[in-house]
Amino acid sequence: MQLRYSIFGESHGPAIGVVIENLPSGIPVDIEFINSELDRRRAKKGGLSTPRLESDLPEIVSGVFEGFTTGTPLCAIIRNGNTRSGDYSRTKDLARPSHADYTGRIRYGGFNDYRGGGHFSGRLTAPMVFAGAVAKLWLKEKGIFVGGHILRVGEAEDLPFDPVHIVPADFQKIASRTLPTISEEAGKAMEAIIQQARMEQTSVGGIVQCAVTGLPAGIGSPDESLEGIIAKNIFSVPAVKGLEFGLGFGFGSAYGHEVNDPMRMENGRVVSSSNNNGGILGGISSGMPLIFQAAIKPTPSISRPQDTINMETMENASIEIQGRHDPCILSRATVVIEAAAALSVMEAILDSMTDSATDSTTDSTTDGRS
Amino acid sequence: MQLRYSIFGESHGPAIGVVIENLPSGIPVDIEFINSELDRRRAKKGGLSTPRLESDLPEIVSGVFEGFTTGTPLCAIIRNGNTRSGDYSRTKDLARPSHADYTGRIRYGGFNDYRGGGHFSGRLTAPMVFAGAVAKLWLKEKGIFVGGHILRVGEAEDLPFDPVHIVPADFQKIASRTLPTISEEAGKAMEAIIQQARMEQTSVGGIVQCAVTGLPAGIGSPDESLEGIIAKNIFSVPAVKGLEFGLGFGFGSAYGHEVNDPMRMENGRVVSSSNNNGGILGGISSGMPLIFQAAIKPTPSISRPQDTINMETMENASIEIQGRHDPCILSRATVVIEAAAALSVMEAILDSMTDSATDSTTDSTTDGRS
Amino acid sequence: MQLRYSIFGESHGPAIGVVIENLPSGIPVDIEFINSELDRRRAKKGGLSTPRLESDLPEIVSGVFEGFTTGTPLCAIIRNGNTRSGDYSRTKDLARPSHADYTGRIRYGGFNDYRGGGHFSGRLTAPMVFAGAVAKLWLKEKGIFVGGHILRVGEAEDLPFDPVHIVPADFQKIASRTLPTISEEAGKAMEAIIQQARMEQTSVGGIVQCAVTGLPAGIGSPDESLEGIIAKNIFSVPAVKGLEFGLGFGFGSAYGHEVNDPMRMENGRVVSSSNNNGGILGGISSGMPLIFQAAIKPTPSISRPQDTINMETMENASIEIQGRHDPCILSRATVVIEAAAALSVMEAILDSMTDSATDSTTDSTTDGRS
Amino acid sequence: MQLRYSIFGESHGPAIGVVIENLPSGIPVDIEFINSELDRRRAKKGGLSTPRLESDLPEIVSGVFEGFTTGTPLCAIIRNGNTRSGDYSRTKDLARPSHADYTGRIRYGGFNDYRGGGHFSGRLTAPMVFAGAVAKLWLKEKGIFVGGHILRVGEAEDLPFDPVHIVPADFQKIASRTLPTISEEAGKAMEAIIQQARMEQTSVGGIVQCAVTGLPAGIGSPDESLEGIIAKNIFSVPAVKGLEFGLGFGFGSAYGHEVNDPMRMENGRVVSSSNNNGGILGGISSGMPLIFQAAIKPTPSISRPQDTINMETMENASIEIQGRHDPCILSRATVVIEAAAALSVMEAILDSMTDSATDSTTDSTTDGRS
Repeated sequence: MQLRYSIFGESHGPAIGVVIENLPSGIPVDIEFINSELDRRRAKKGGLSTPRLESDLPEIVSGVFEGFTTGTPLCAIIRNGNTRSGDYSRTKDLARPSHADYTGRIRYGGFNDYRGGGHFSGRLTAPMVFAGAVAKLWLKEKGIFVGGHILRVGEAEDLPFDPVHIVPADFQKIASRTLPTISEEAGKAMEAIIQQARMEQTSVGGIVQCAVTGLPAGIGSPDESLEGIIAKNIFSVPAVKGLEFGLGFGFGSAYGHEVNDPMRMENGRVVSSSNNNGGILGGISSGMPLIFQAAIKPTPSISRPQDTINMETMENASIEIQGRHDPCILSRATVVIEAAAALSVMEAILDSMTDSATDSTTDSTTDGRS
Repeated sequence: MQLRYSIFGESHGPAIGVVIENLPSGIPVDIEFINSELDRRRAKKGGLSTPRLESDLPEIVSGVFEGFTTGTPLCAIIRNGNTRSGDYSRTKDLARPSHADYTGRIRYGGFNDYRGGGHFSGRLTAPMVFAGAVAKLWLKEKGIFVGGHILRVGEAEDLPFDPVHIVPADFQKIASRTLPTISEEAGKAMEAIIQQARMEQTSVGGIVQCAVTGLPAGIGSPDESLEGIIAKNIFSVPAVKGLEFGLGFGFGSAYGHEVNDPMRMENGRVVSSSNNNGGILGGISSGMPLIFQAAIKPTPSISRPQDTINMETMENASIEIQGRHDPCILSRATVVIEAAAALSVMEAILDSMTDSATDSTTDSTTDGRS
Repeated sequence: MQLRYSIFGESHGPAIGVVIENLPSGIPVDIEFINSELDRRRAKKGGLSTPRLESDLPEIVSGVFEGFTTGTPLCAIIRNGNTRSGDYSRTKDLARPSHADYTGRIRYGGFNDYRGGGHFSGRLTAPMVFAGAVAKLWLKEKGIFVGGHILRVGEAEDLPFDPVHIVPADFQKIASRTLPTISEEAGKAMEAIIQQARMEQTSVGGIVQCAVTGLPAGIGSPDESLEGIIAKNIFSVPAVKGLEFGLGFGFGSAYGHEVNDPMRMENGRVVSSSNNNGGILGGISSGMPLIFQAAIKPTPSISRPQDTINMETMENASIEIQGRHDPCILSRATVVIEAAAALSVMEAILDSMTDSATDSTTDSTTDGRS
Repeated sequence: MQLRYSIFGESHGPAIGVVIENLPSGIPVDIEFINSELDRRRAKKGGLSTPRLESDLPEIVSGVFEGFTTGTPLCAIIRNGNTRSGDYSRTKDLARPSHADYTGRIRYGGFNDYRGGGHFSGRLTAPMVFAGAVAKLWLKEKGIFVGGHILRVGEAEDLPFDPVHIVPADFQKIASRTLPTISEEAGKAMEAIIQQARMEQTSVGGIVQCAVTGLPAGIGSPDESLEGIIAKNIFSVPAVKGLEFGLGFGFGSAYGHEVNDPMRMENGRVVSSSNNNGGILGGISSGMPLIFQAAIKPTPSISRPQDTINMETMENASIEIQGRHDPCILSRATVVIEAAAALSVMEAILDSMTDSATDSTTDSTTDGRS
């Protein structure tokens, strides 16, 4: 059955959470690891993110028994504390530009919880990180690892992953930094840009690059492509506006003889000497590292005056968004993108398992018919 | 119920086709229009595409009665003619680099039809164009139009759509050109690049830009985002490696105060004075034109010698791909991307209809609770 | 989008609950009504059900704002109190006959929570009653009502619903009784049978009959039949082993001329003078009352000695099930069956709404094409 | 991924057929076996079924290569021949009682193909038999067999399957008879009843009993129960109005101590000495034979005059249904019910494979944790 997760909750309601269905039984639920992942998403002091600090300790309500998943639905909830609903009532009818205030109101006929963005809030990414951490625990047992870094913030650019030789050890080093980057200088340049944006009462966007190592060939299918599964999950992360695999948009100005990935045998394994396709061909994993980039827009909450409309009176208005906001969500977004990737890869592996002629858990290199 | 389509067939099998489920009844099935869409996808003479010319006339097997959809599953098939299986047998065990030969073989344990890429063939986009044409006929009745153009081929770049003021009339003008571009000069530059690529026995990639006009606000949802629905369909098109909405990857180096879309009342309608978000906020349509770009890699079939492996002997090998190939699929891809967009938007509208508090077929600008 | 609910939790875990997705926004969430429905499912004193009495007050965690559904996922949880895990540890490895102890252990590789049946417990029907109550609140606004009664317990049989003339007022009268029956004498006979079963340390099965009134014609489809949607939900209720619509198994010994339902015009409405088909033809509602019966097996927990196996030693064994059990779950099952029916009918109506040529919310009797 | 099939076509359109998605690759597609299954469904001479005789030879359009399934969608179509549309035009606006003429017209706004019932026709069960035959070929390789017999026609009753000791050899003997029954005398009595019904211009209903042998324990789940999967498929077969597992409705008048299935070790295997639960506990297979009964109503097409309405004029009318009809569809329905069962069991096995802690293809009797 398809791995499925349902994220519920509103920013200023009693709690947020997730139900994960069709999890395999027997996954060791390492609470410490899950909390460390949630901690990576959490806002930190120092001006790089919002001053709304929350503890975000999850309560596992079901689906775990004596430390292992039971195989029946796993529900975890995270209580909302530190909510200041008063912050929002004053501007309830003013649509924050580039936020979902207007579209949500139309979609739900005005019944949506508008406080802090309600169900549209970036806070809802915490349960996704929870679910992603469970997926990572399952993947780890198969030797599959997921890691990300900030490739870009404004004009500052990090080094890219080596798409052929990347190893999981790279991920740990990155995750330990203030901003998760490969190059420390790039991280410092990004910090400067973010602090500058905060002081100028604006925000700044960026790009996250994510990699999955250890994924065997043969996961995915042409009709439900691995790219499509990842896209479904990545585009449910608020603020993501673009997704590309491998060379991605770079393919648009490239020639076949330059970017085709030549194949070789190496120590009995099938590899390619370049990995412009980001580890996916025909919607199916190739055995090379899976690489993608996600574009994240600047958080639309800025305190400068902006033109907008009053949704109640349907007249032009101006808004200055007060409250506590992130000048840049890239530092917190990396682990969210990783979570979406981990859930996607897990879903695709479980899907491909239903094919009796494929042993999807080993890097099989031979033809099942021979 | 969810609009659903299943594309079946192999490049060198008896036929390819599609079953569309949960279509509304009563859609006028304009065969002439459908055939004109299939014609846009068809290879043309003149060196811009493959010399494999096919008639591609669909047979509607079910789901249409007296010219209208019945509401029960619509199946259409397109017979395969002009297949030269002999072209492929010689290289059966050589994995064509950047094709799905190797991944498909692993995924399906060697049972997949390898001839011409089998189910992975670009030929399978013909049934998608058929299904997209049916979706367009339904959308047209609601005043919703879908159009695309080639934004880039190699270094040649077309003008972008005006994301705020684009109108359907623009689409017709574009579709009538040899290459579907806004600027005729850009089209000529692209033609030159493609002919050059053909002569140099290579291929070239590009970017398609697609727009949807007339889409009311309120379509989509945060959990099944409009971006996600489009992504699922777009990434099932072979050779697509990237997708971005509005400013997309441009957001990565942008600041909030520059790219937030200010909102205004205009003739009683809610509009935004820019449209960097490409018509989607919080996974829901905003009422502005929906704009996205899809990156398409150079077709991997090139006749230059390439390093590869022999999948039977598991040894290194070299391949020179013979046969009839497109030096650039962008001219044919535009209508395919439009089809995927039309099917996505139709699916999202039907999904949003289940919400009793939303009238998703009109551009409602008022609050249902007031 | 499809109405969807995920029930989570284990009998002896911290809590049980449900997430409902794709609920329309704007449903008035009448907490008092919901609690009254949960109260109908609750065990009562007097020997007719288990002495495990729980308060079962749900906490709505998300998806409701200012008294109305928001349209985003609704999560409700019910804390588990009054658990006596000690009751179960002694017999942990003994498979209770006709329970899911053995099948659950095989299915989940021994990782399932065995205490009190874990996720297989009848206690998990409480969240279903919660979800069903929300569905009933939505249906009520459309003039659609769901009601049930105990048709049989052991040899005692209630009068059946009048399948043509049944009205919602009948439902209220039934629900107010100790045992929900049409005939008070039948209820008394059932009580006697249940008390007898309790004294004899056994249990007794029965049949629930359920009706839906006010359902317009045109809901459902041949490929996803209304019967199939109801069946999916009804067979997820523990202990249900049979389901029939209208005459059901009675059709097996019937002749066409006796049981075909003749059609008539009556006050401008299309009716049938009999309703052997239980309000469904071709998988689609006919406008007549929807009628079905569900067979419920005796609760397998009885305190007499039974032959079984020890799942750890894989040897024959004997078990005497101690603890607090229902001698008959029919009194509590009626509202559960109603809940499954309400959720099914709501799902089918929302599904049929996507068909633009059908106005599924009114009892249309004319042809859309004329 | 979930096994999925989409049946398309109308009784008097060009063709009917099926697309099966997510089939495992490598299933040997034994055309002879498939045709023999279709032959079991086909009308025969001799008065027991309709005189509309068709050849029903399927064309496999996709998804099979060199005799094996490829793993990509399999489409097969069966051309419609021998259609006499003239038979239906005269009574186009008269709703045939207990048929779907009226409900289909309302559901699809009058756009459905009314000829011969269109997509509601029993003829659409031929593609289901095709798909079921493919499923049986896959199941056979795992030692799982599906068989059925007519348990009842009118008052004539066959012997039931032995729910504990049934073996596949029983199925072959039954299938070779004129009417598929266990007892030859019961078959003869049924024949007499059917001939009598035909002469009296009426029709007669019945019950099919179906069994699955060799199914290992551990298939299914509490939330997507094996009963629910079977029910979804069985209730999509036209004319089915009831479904029960094992003792089914007999549980309604039974006591726990009589009908609980005692468990025993037998030659190292876990068995139960009775099988009242029909091989399913908690929605999961127990390793005992799976047994169910489906109630089938008399075909509503009878040539006696019947009260009905004219759907165009909305007035009372009378109808005498002419044309070629089955007086009893039980002889043809058995293989259809088997097909639905085979598809269900295959779907459930593939679903349960995603659970890494379960080896669903072997009859594992030990605890994965020990």
